[in-house]
Amino acid sequence: MMEELVREVLEGNKRAIARAITLIENNPEKCPEFIKSIFSFTGNAFIIGVTGPPGSGKSTLVNSLSKEFRKRGKTIGIVAVDPTSPFSGGALLGDRIRMDELTSDPNVFIRSMGSRGSLGGLSRATMDAIRVLDASGFDLILVETVGAGQSEVDIVRVANCSIVIGIPGTGDAVQAIKAGILEIADIYVVNKSDRPGATEIVNELQLLLSLDPKSKDPNRWKIPVISTSSVKNIGIEPLADMIFKYQSYLLDPKNTDYALEQEMKRRKHEILEIIKVEIFENMLSSLMNRQKWEKILLEVIQKKSDPYSAANSILDPLFR
Amino acid sequence: MMEELVREVLEGNKRAIARAITLIENNPEKCPEFIKSIFSFTGNAFIIGVTGPPGSGKSTLVNSLSKEFRKRGKTIGIVAVDPTSPFSGGALLGDRIRMDELTSDPNVFIRSMGSRGSLGGLSRATMDAIRVLDASGFDLILVETVGAGQSEVDIVRVANCSIVIGIPGTGDAVQAIKAGILEIADIYVVNKSDRPGATEIVNELQLLLSLDPKSKDPNRWKIPVISTSSVKNIGIEPLADMIFKYQSYLLDPKNTDYALEQEMKRRKHEILEIIKVEIFENMLSSLMNRQKWEKILLEVIQKKSDPYSAANSILDPLFR
Repeated sequence: MMEELVREVLEGNKRAIARAITLIENNPEKCPEFIKSIFSFTGNAFIIGVTGPPGSGKSTLVNSLSKEFRKRGKTIGIVAVDPTSPFSGGALLGDRIRMDELTSDPNVFIRSMGSRGSLGGLSRATMDAIRVLDASGFDLILVETVGAGQSEVDIVRVANCSIVIGIPGTGDAVQAIKAGILEIADIYVVNKSDRPGATEIVNELQLLLSLDPKSKDPNRWKIPVISTSSVKNIGIEPLADMIFKYQSYLLDPKNTDYALEQEMKRRKHEILEIIKVEIFENMLSSLMNRQKWEKILLEVIQKKSDPYSAANSILDPLFR
Repeated sequence: MMEELVREVLEGNKRAIARAITLIENNPEKCPEFIKSIFSFTGNAFIIGVTGPPGSGKSTLVNSLSKEFRKRGKTIGIVAVDPTSPFSGGALLGDRIRMDELTSDPNVFIRSMGSRGSLGGLSRATMDAIRVLDASGFDLILVETVGAGQSEVDIVRVANCSIVIGIPGTGDAVQAIKAGILEIADIYVVNKSDRPGATEIVNELQLLLSLDPKSKDPNRWKIPVISTSSVKNIGIEPLADMIFKYQSYLLDPKNTDYALEQEMKRRKHEILEIIKVEIFENMLSSLMNRQKWEKILLEVIQKKSDPYSAANSILDPLFR
């Protein structure tokens, strides 16, 4: 049965793709086998991560960008990740606004993914969902995540190109983004650029980016700041152009070292995520039942033990 | 030397507290010993977690709330956590607005914590910083975190009382919060309530909260929705009242089971965080050097291996 699913996924059958992602979400134990079967067919899609705080207009931007990509003849897989949502499937997270030409387009596949109670597994499930879309032949995969917290950063890290969105008028957002932007963004977008303060944010960000010592290296990719208004469809074409420019940059033989370094970082991150899930979801839960936990926790609560000693008492048998 | 530091921390010496937190951030290997020394003196502070998206006015709210607590004679420790910031110390993350009576108040201690490159350890370091403040005798500890992503949720989970902030006019925020709010909030705050749309958000949230099956249980804490405008100092007193009401609720003998359940969840989370750091920061890095990683990563990139097989090859020697 899994062989048939693999075959249909590789053929690009949308119903099979949906079934495969559901399998990944609900039956993590089947993932290693499934991913191994499709893994040699992955690596052809260009994965674009889009993140930003709630209210920054990610969904609308991903929507506009997808339409622009369609105009350019690209096939598109969209994965919308909401770590705070226990829901997953096709009809949530900003999909209100997607109930339009995109959903009926046979060359577009849209999927929402939520935590389903297991936040630890979301990152891993998202990666595997991306692999499914990659193996099934989509040219571009857009991964949209809420916020700028760790799990979102984790998810964006699997992308070939990371887009971080900010909006004018939220001073705090700029503050919060300042430190993180240099680490995760390949392209920075100031969305809702028709709002007051947009020019100031763009200037501030460009100044900030120019201060990064890495920007002095002439061969290094310079993080561009692009103004968009996805509602008014402003800046979408330049953004799409910039994404392809970054793709070309990565493919340029001059930048092989940089591209390989990025690829290695991504792979390392993926492997560490799998290890994390394996240890915390599988090994630890088989080792520690409810009673064992209760005993240890009560000892800590009653101050007979402390959290570090408790952690050691759990780790010891795990590692002999 | 550590004995002296422990003694000074327990005396509530602010410079010693600052030194202890720096020790926790920079020398994680010394934490188990240090925390063991102070652990039996912890458990007296009431820990209040405050989280919300960037731009929701957390810092200003924490500021106003602290002043209100001071009026009521409480001593206060404030930990401002920004997972996207590589900085830590006393003078960042919204501290602009704190350069006022709070910083000069001997009964208030303020500390910012950033990731310092090690996102995995931030949660652990924050917990330990809270323990230091707890042991040194502060009545209330306010922990402020950016966003609503996983690491922020993790940090809020260590609190006795979690406050989640939303603001009017960000439809996306409400969407994003809807699912998460029931899980992590003990009190929900609609800040910037002088903005249009505030009443609608409050009504929407109250409706949403009333739909939760748990709210049917008459003994169960009902998550209140409080409107505030920290800039205009509206709603701060009712919010402070509600926090103390929740504290009394937890102390009420009728609710012992609920309070213990919450305490156990918190302790379990703490222990798991310590285990995570131990495995990923210590064990794995001593097992895997750069060359080993490169070999494994190149095999995956060249499709000679896949991420699951690679993860297994790392896990196997770790667990025999």
